[in-house]
Amino acid sequence: MNQDSETNPQHAGWVRSLRLSPPSLKDNTADADRLLTTLGRELGVEWVGVDLALLRELPFRLRQWDYHVRCIFVKDAGRFHLVGVLGALEATPALGLAVDLGTSRVVARLLNLETGQVLAETSFDNPQIEIGPDVLTRIHFIDQTSSGGKKLQDIIIQALNKAIAGLCAAAGHAPENIFLTAVAGNTTMTHLFLGLDPHWIIREPYIPVVNTPTGICAGELGLKAGPHARVIVFPNVGSYFGGDLIAGILYTDMHHSKDTVILVDVGTNAEVVLGNSEWLVACAGAAGPALEGGVTKMGMMAGPGVIDEVGIDRATRTFQLHTIDDLPPRGICGSGLIDLAAQLFLAGIVDIRGKLKAPGEHACIVEIDGLRHLVLASAEATALGKPLLISQADLDSLVRAKAAMYTILETITAFVGLSFSDLAKFYVAGTFGAFIRPASAVAIGMLPDLPLSTYQALGNTSLEGAALVLTQAQRLDEIRHIRNRITYMELNVNQDLMNRFSAARFFPHTDARRFPSVAVWD
Amino acid sequence: MNQDSETNPQHAGWVRSLRLSPPSLKDNTADADRLLTTLGRELGVEWVGVDLALLRELPFRLRQWDYHVRCIFVKDAGRFHLVGVLGALEATPALGLAVDLGTSRVVARLLNLETGQVLAETSFDNPQIEIGPDVLTRIHFIDQTSSGGKKLQDIIIQALNKAIAGLCAAAGHAPENIFLTAVAGNTTMTHLFLGLDPHWIIREPYIPVVNTPTGICAGELGLKAGPHARVIVFPNVGSYFGGDLIAGILYTDMHHSKDTVILVDVGTNAEVVLGNSEWLVACAGAAGPALEGGVTKMGMMAGPGVIDEVGIDRATRTFQLHTIDDLPPRGICGSGLIDLAAQLFLAGIVDIRGKLKAPGEHACIVEIDGLRHLVLASAEATALGKPLLISQADLDSLVRAKAAMYTILETITAFVGLSFSDLAKFYVAGTFGAFIRPASAVAIGMLPDLPLSTYQALGNTSLEGAALVLTQAQRLDEIRHIRNRITYMELNVNQDLMNRFSAARFFPHTDARRFPSVAVWD
Repeated sequence: MNQDSETNPQHAGWVRSLRLSPPSLKDNTADADRLLTTLGRELGVEWVGVDLALLRELPFRLRQWDYHVRCIFVKDAGRFHLVGVLGALEATPALGLAVDLGTSRVVARLLNLETGQVLAETSFDNPQIEIGPDVLTRIHFIDQTSSGGKKLQDIIIQALNKAIAGLCAAAGHAPENIFLTAVAGNTTMTHLFLGLDPHWIIREPYIPVVNTPTGICAGELGLKAGPHARVIVFPNVGSYFGGDLIAGILYTDMHHSKDTVILVDVGTNAEVVLGNSEWLVACAGAAGPALEGGVTKMGMMAGPGVIDEVGIDRATRTFQLHTIDDLPPRGICGSGLIDLAAQLFLAGIVDIRGKLKAPGEHACIVEIDGLRHLVLASAEATALGKPLLISQADLDSLVRAKAAMYTILETITAFVGLSFSDLAKFYVAGTFGAFIRPASAVAIGMLPDLPLSTYQALGNTSLEGAALVLTQAQRLDEIRHIRNRITYMELNVNQDLMNRFSAARFFPHTDARRFPSVAVWD
Repeated sequence: MNQDSETNPQHAGWVRSLRLSPPSLKDNTADADRLLTTLGRELGVEWVGVDLALLRELPFRLRQWDYHVRCIFVKDAGRFHLVGVLGALEATPALGLAVDLGTSRVVARLLNLETGQVLAETSFDNPQIEIGPDVLTRIHFIDQTSSGGKKLQDIIIQALNKAIAGLCAAAGHAPENIFLTAVAGNTTMTHLFLGLDPHWIIREPYIPVVNTPTGICAGELGLKAGPHARVIVFPNVGSYFGGDLIAGILYTDMHHSKDTVILVDVGTNAEVVLGNSEWLVACAGAAGPALEGGVTKMGMMAGPGVIDEVGIDRATRTFQLHTIDDLPPRGICGSGLIDLAAQLFLAGIVDIRGKLKAPGEHACIVEIDGLRHLVLASAEATALGKPLLISQADLDSLVRAKAAMYTILETITAFVGLSFSDLAKFYVAGTFGAFIRPASAVAIGMLPDLPLSTYQALGNTSLEGAALVLTQAQRLDEIRHIRNRITYMELNVNQDLMNRFSAARFFPHTDARRFPSVAVWD
């Protein structure tokens, strides 16, 4: 957001152009001290660190460019650190790599550290999936396999190296010119990336090896970036609240907001942050078994032929389906399913419990093996050679998922003594946020009944936050401030929570007054 | 000196014992942050850095010792950095290695970082001598040899590793328990040690690669110390004023002295520092060709059978020789030669120009090939099978050397507008300082005519300074303050200097009033 709304002046980045006075008999300060002292003066600090390997190159680089150079640096554990030197006038760009390190999906973006220009972007399934689909199975793999942690680390590093090679080839630059990498992932993904043992993350009292990793060199991870490149790893708050969400908060800028806003990030997990410039409260959906996985098990991934939008003609009660690439339908994704449920409810095809009416009441309802199904598309209309069916069980899942989401939102808002109407903005991140239609989510009571303009989809906030910190140096300090300011709310599965969850298992809610805008059709 | 005069309380060192509260559901801070935050609080800082490799070990080490540990840390480029963790109650000591990295001779001392106890010490010829005896030849070797710098670095690192192995074996400890190393050497030796190209050090305008090296890991140098050990490298002031002398100043504590004192260090080079708590002025003997090497080319190294002390019986005018280990004489070392010259002058066997009288005047003078010689010991008395002779040329060398020393001392003292009588202490470092008798040096006008109690021999101040910084943490900041406070005085070979040098080429000086205590015998 800030990337869009603000200009990105060079002086705020990690690259500084310096014209040093060349050595003379009257000023015979050493090359390194000449450079680092000047840079330190520019940055207002006494010390700037440098690795020995780069130190060895300095006299050559300074002389090659006649002491007129661009310094690429970063702040690490509170101290600035030089990571590269380029000629001030040479064309070689200083590159940065932003990574959203998801459990299921990884996104990497190559950008110009000086201009912020995005040069290339790619995404791929996290190949650690071949070991285990989720963090639990991966951690168990490490517990049971000699060098299992090393293997999982190798898998992701190799995949990132392939991505780096591809991104650089696409952009026409060399991987050696990547000076900084910023990585945002959940706590376990971060541990696997760094080769830290995640054993204790999933065992009471749930202790990561590190909350705030510092001093990470790309080279020691095996990352094929520049030889002295450093890696900014977003800190976690705890085992269940990772750097990806810190990156998301950074991107929303909610930590600077006078108004109270909320951020919901639904990825492999569902995470929620509520707050403003004074305070931040967060919780994660995985905390309670009743909610676990619920929100995210809706339908298939989007892809060609997948229904992503559903309407019902108010007069004819017939379905109006939109598929990706306008191909014959072969399935339905989360946003399509939410649309569908909303329309079914508004059209009276399901009741307030989300139950399909009897087959006789609507032509689109059939009973198969004693279970009611909705025929969303006939065999002739699909690409499957059979009808596209949505079972009652699918709808029940959706009801649980939407109830879980609403319960989390209600619980965290109540935790700070606010009501939904106090929220000035409702940010929805992730693929989920990018595609759902708030009106549909409100209609089924998944999201609260706020003015639709309150809702804003932000896309991959984790990636955007990682990209921000690469181009706006002061953001790095903000990361720490955000992290230290967050109050983590444990979602205890107590009677209160279960009561809320039960009340939310209706369309839109047992207390329909909470959803004044939702009115079923005549 | 401080090591002797002060107690060395544990809280002032680089090892801190910490009892952390173990993780719980109410306090689930990560292991690393738990440790580093607690350590940082003890040290009064927000950040303490740690290398990834040590980070990976932390959860195991903390649990092994039930969160009751000793942290070994260091300050690097202004920031504290964790370098090791031991159990608070385990017997394993935290070791440190202090190194005086001389061009000719290297001394290494193994000590206990917590108690300051010296565990073992060793010295050896710098094996880089096989490449070249001095810094110039070694730098030329690098200029002319592919990977020459790497070769010179390997040579010294291998020698240090051998020394480390020997020291640890002698002390009964493992090299893995060395957590810190402090290295003091001249600028070129430091560059060779770090693998930095010294090419520009000897070429106008004489620029080192670095004045203040930071962030040096033992592992990246190939030093076989502990896996996460760091190396404190004493900074240099410039190409001709190295970290060895900074270490010497640190050891004298002259930077805290109210009175003005002087430090003379004669090693491969002759270096002089003058100052007090307000200011420090320094110069090096290599700066002027007329002085170069002069001071240090006196006699042979001390060893068995070497004359180290000479007297002349005032009545009989016969020599009274003392040899090392009381063996028959086979040569004479610097201190013996100064003794000899003083006695010869006082006894009237040489004149004020240092010239031997005619063979007829004294039985001990002979003429060989037209050059006068002194017979110090007859063939029967020596271990050589021939008489031990000192030629007029040897004495002329000594006169030049002593004149050079006096000239340096006079020049630097005059530079700050003081006279010798303003000096409260005259520290003499190095082997030279350990063995010369000030009375003799004063008698020939090598050192000024100050009360003999003013003179104090300090031994290897470079090594002692390196050892100090390993056991007294606050000394590290002092190093930087010393370095930044030093004014380096270039010894320009101008008419003034040559006039002083000419006037000093007499015993004790052309201006005998400067040496009121020196009176030739009746």
